[in-house]
Amino acid sequence: MSRSTFYHAGCPVCVSAEHDIVSLVGEENVDIVHIGEDKTQIAEAERSGVQSVPALVTPNGNVLHINFGASLEEVKG
Amino acid sequence: MSRSTFYHAGCPVCVSAEHDIVSLVGEENVDIVHIGEDKTQIAEAERSGVQSVPALVTPNGNVLHINFGASLEEVKG
Repeated sequence: MSRSTFYHAGCPVCVSAEHDIVSLVGEENVDIVHIGEDKTQIAEAERSGVQSVPALVTPNGNVLHINFGASLEEVKG
Repeated sequence: MSRSTFYHAGCPVCVSAEHDIVSLVGEENVDIVHIGEDKTQIAEAERSGVQSVPALVTPNGNVLHINFGASLEEVKG
């Protein structure tokens, strides 16, 4: 299986969802990207279609917005 | 791994998310429940904390609301 990318911003909702996703999908199948700490990744997330975090971009490019932690605009600050 | 439960109501957003979740988690690890067709399951979904569909209830009881198809109130009709 190709890898997914999980985008988050360190918020409690994000951390909780991260644990769930890693547990469900398997740590070896998902890259975790903290766009609050590494803001250079925000543009890449936007190009992938991410509108809010936490979000999971699947290997086929679909975006699953999971619960709601923060919009990308809020992360940009 | 214990099984998760994926609640949906047949909407396009739900069907798309279902394919993604089954692909990510594995068909053998998730029960699919269509609460639009089997409305007796709505109460169980609510007890699990589901507020909208599609949603995934993880083995440890957390609820991941994925994107947004419809609120449970809308499914009740």
